[in-house]
Amino acid sequence: MSTAHVDLNADLGESYGTWRLGDDEAMLGIVTSANVACGFHAGDALTLRRTCEQAAARGVVVGAQVGYNHLAGFGRWSIDMPSAELTADVLYQIGALDGLCRVAGTRVRYVKPHGALYNTAAVDERQARAVVDAVVEYDASLPLLGLPGSALLRVAEERGLRTVREAFADRAYTPEGRLVSRQQPGSVLHDPEEVAARVVRLVTERRLTAVDGTELELGADSVCTHGDSPGAVQMAGAVRQALTAAGVAITPFVGTGPSADPA
Amino acid sequence: MSTAHVDLNADLGESYGTWRLGDDEAMLGIVTSANVACGFHAGDALTLRRTCEQAAARGVVVGAQVGYNHLAGFGRWSIDMPSAELTADVLYQIGALDGLCRVAGTRVRYVKPHGALYNTAAVDERQARAVVDAVVEYDASLPLLGLPGSALLRVAEERGLRTVREAFADRAYTPEGRLVSRQQPGSVLHDPEEVAARVVRLVTERRLTAVDGTELELGADSVCTHGDSPGAVQMAGAVRQALTAAGVAITPFVGTGPSADPA
Amino acid sequence: MSTAHVDLNADLGESYGTWRLGDDEAMLGIVTSANVACGFHAGDALTLRRTCEQAAARGVVVGAQVGYNHLAGFGRWSIDMPSAELTADVLYQIGALDGLCRVAGTRVRYVKPHGALYNTAAVDERQARAVVDAVVEYDASLPLLGLPGSALLRVAEERGLRTVREAFADRAYTPEGRLVSRQQPGSVLHDPEEVAARVVRLVTERRLTAVDGTELELGADSVCTHGDSPGAVQMAGAVRQALTAAGVAITPFVGTGPSADPA
Amino acid sequence: MSTAHVDLNADLGESYGTWRLGDDEAMLGIVTSANVACGFHAGDALTLRRTCEQAAARGVVVGAQVGYNHLAGFGRWSIDMPSAELTADVLYQIGALDGLCRVAGTRVRYVKPHGALYNTAAVDERQARAVVDAVVEYDASLPLLGLPGSALLRVAEERGLRTVREAFADRAYTPEGRLVSRQQPGSVLHDPEEVAARVVRLVTERRLTAVDGTELELGADSVCTHGDSPGAVQMAGAVRQALTAAGVAITPFVGTGPSADPA
Repeated sequence: MSTAHVDLNADLGESYGTWRLGDDEAMLGIVTSANVACGFHAGDALTLRRTCEQAAARGVVVGAQVGYNHLAGFGRWSIDMPSAELTADVLYQIGALDGLCRVAGTRVRYVKPHGALYNTAAVDERQARAVVDAVVEYDASLPLLGLPGSALLRVAEERGLRTVREAFADRAYTPEGRLVSRQQPGSVLHDPEEVAARVVRLVTERRLTAVDGTELELGADSVCTHGDSPGAVQMAGAVRQALTAAGVAITPFVGTGPSADPA
Repeated sequence: MSTAHVDLNADLGESYGTWRLGDDEAMLGIVTSANVACGFHAGDALTLRRTCEQAAARGVVVGAQVGYNHLAGFGRWSIDMPSAELTADVLYQIGALDGLCRVAGTRVRYVKPHGALYNTAAVDERQARAVVDAVVEYDASLPLLGLPGSALLRVAEERGLRTVREAFADRAYTPEGRLVSRQQPGSVLHDPEEVAARVVRLVTERRLTAVDGTELELGADSVCTHGDSPGAVQMAGAVRQALTAAGVAITPFVGTGPSADPA
Repeated sequence: MSTAHVDLNADLGESYGTWRLGDDEAMLGIVTSANVACGFHAGDALTLRRTCEQAAARGVVVGAQVGYNHLAGFGRWSIDMPSAELTADVLYQIGALDGLCRVAGTRVRYVKPHGALYNTAAVDERQARAVVDAVVEYDASLPLLGLPGSALLRVAEERGLRTVREAFADRAYTPEGRLVSRQQPGSVLHDPEEVAARVVRLVTERRLTAVDGTELELGADSVCTHGDSPGAVQMAGAVRQALTAAGVAITPFVGTGPSADPA
Repeated sequence: MSTAHVDLNADLGESYGTWRLGDDEAMLGIVTSANVACGFHAGDALTLRRTCEQAAARGVVVGAQVGYNHLAGFGRWSIDMPSAELTADVLYQIGALDGLCRVAGTRVRYVKPHGALYNTAAVDERQARAVVDAVVEYDASLPLLGLPGSALLRVAEERGLRTVREAFADRAYTPEGRLVSRQQPGSVLHDPEEVAARVVRLVTERRLTAVDGTELELGADSVCTHGDSPGAVQMAGAVRQALTAAGVAITPFVGTGPSADPA
């Protein structure tokens, strides 16, 4: 009999210079996978370096959270950029973070697009392809984290990448299994107990109630707990505690041992 | 009897988006080492990727030309930044370029600071130390290119890095062996024949005439031919031709074979 | 009997730091209106200042060429940004350029969106509204330059702004009077004589042949001659010469006298 | 008998996109002058616009806090940039903020350099001159805020600008009347009561105790209360309360009525 298990991830390393965002240290005590920014939508090099060091010290797996090259919009505004430029930007970001990981004694172990790139690559096959190309070229053994049913994961599977299905702890879902847009009321859930109970049901029963009451069947390998909102640490802690109490093993979806070198 | 030999290097990959600078393809047909920008003072990711691919295709060695994080000043204005931030910025840049090199079938084989970072690290021991720290941490087998007698090379040697002494083909020297500031008249030489003759004499006799007529004794392992000025390609070609005619072997100072992985 | 007349405009001030683009001085000898970049898609402050000074010295009218805040894409990639941020960005740019104009003895006399903002605001009413809001708030007497039939000009008219219909000297048109996308072959015309003849016919007969041979009827108050391509100066000169030979008066669409202060 | 009076200022508008810094609204209820960032070291356009609107609504005077063009260092790292570029950058920033002020129903009424530019222009006459040139050219009636005895204020006076002497509520002073460097222990005072008492004594007796116990005689027209540290609002409130209790009138050093237009 196999135990139910799931990965917990959070977006980290999103400070920039004097501007601080989120509490990376506290979140690293809760999650098993850290989506670390790569300097394009957020993350100065020193912040990224320290986040990688802390993740390595705590045995948290590091993933490259690649984004649009746009600090002004924090990567949250979709940019209609050409494929070759997007692929090169993603390659550049993975390499930069991987370099910081190496000196911190770890490596980039997966890739997750950030913000508007995540959302755009979920529906825009061209941009999905540009992101997947970069991962395949950098290291085809790196898994790609994304929304189940997204163009990104479909293209990634076609290209032979391992895909990891992500669910969002604090987001409302449409009856079609999409996220309710942040522009809509009720799109983000704020009650830690309610969120924790949803996540437990999702992981143990593969079921989630959509915003209109529809029951969704949804598989998830990793659950995202946001790192940058007030109450984020408390919310993530509540999710972790509830999962543990329900007998769910919280484990990363990739190991932290040595990986094959891409070169 | 050993043949005289020298490396020729040039700054490449310094375009940014729509803005083009220099003729990378032509220069890659002349030099043996390419100081490729890393995106902080210049170089969008796609430009860098293509430059690395072209260098790999022609067997030209790639070095990481790390600079201050400042497109507005093209890295040519000294920035009095803290050491930890500078070290992290240099690490980030080397990693980013190395990632692009890996997918292009090559690797970063040396490091050279760009512009104001080159000049500042030549005299400011704190910044020199910050740069050297990054190279030591990333891969202590990477040589560091710099000005003979500079703080940068002295600190690098203390830390056990291999150092490569650089001379400038088209720059006037002070009687002390320093470069005449670009702010001064006569600091940059423009006649290809004169420049070529100076380089041949420097390589074969280790002698160079300073701006005041003083004869300098100067060792150089690599000669920099600027890539971004009008006439750059012609100048570099004249230098290469004159060296070859004088029987000097033009060879990179590092091999292009597989290097040990830093991880 | 009124003489045929038209304005000639060009995009100027698009250098950035060490990167030069276009020959502003030569173009200022040809055009009557200068769309000067505002620092967001291109244009460092010193370049902008000098371009404004040169325009003032030659009596060329200055317009604010406002763009997305994105040097990496040169403002040529559409960004799906919120309206309040876009309006504030446009206001900021107009104010910055107007300040440089004041010290140069002139003023911003019109506004033209650049690149992807021009194209997006031609079809996306929300972004069009955000741009128009900024112009109305800054100075409702400033005309807005745009594509005839675009959402931008329609919204501007609804808000009471003066609109100026722009045609493109070197671009192919669809049968519907739209520009053929730059991604399509034949979208940009390169023969100065052909381009000049098209412009003369457009101005004197209000007719233009579309890419499929359809005859379009098209009014134009201002003709854009691109400033940043090789041959741009020659092309613009040919257009000016042909118009003059055909008896067309080349005059700006706004005067250069003192304007009412927006405060 | 004239009443003792002083201005209270704070640095505001220093958020950038998703990153928030300081509590502008609370500070605007305490200070009489707002040094609003201009987008180069901090401050996206929408943040700046809103800060100007709030300042106008509360009758707080707006000054342009001009800085180096460097988000990564928050303008806190000195940049050795050429004078013409620095003057143009300062002009650009004043114009941009002034445009946002106009649409908010106010105007830029003074200029204060930020961070490293403030410190560099206090000792580097060349950079001081570049800043002063910009203010003189933009509007020679704008006062310049700076450190008493600084190169900046000396050059400003030579050029005929009105200068405003600034003191820092929460900073330790050297026996020479300079600020103790932030790198030194004890450079920043944290006890609101102690800080408030120092400010009252400074304003009413023109006396301040230096870090070594020396009694300094120091005139101050405006006292800076930092806006971006934790406890900033409480500190500024304590200063205001203590001054009021001591019978000191807290009034801006410039009026908020219509100013002459620079054009």
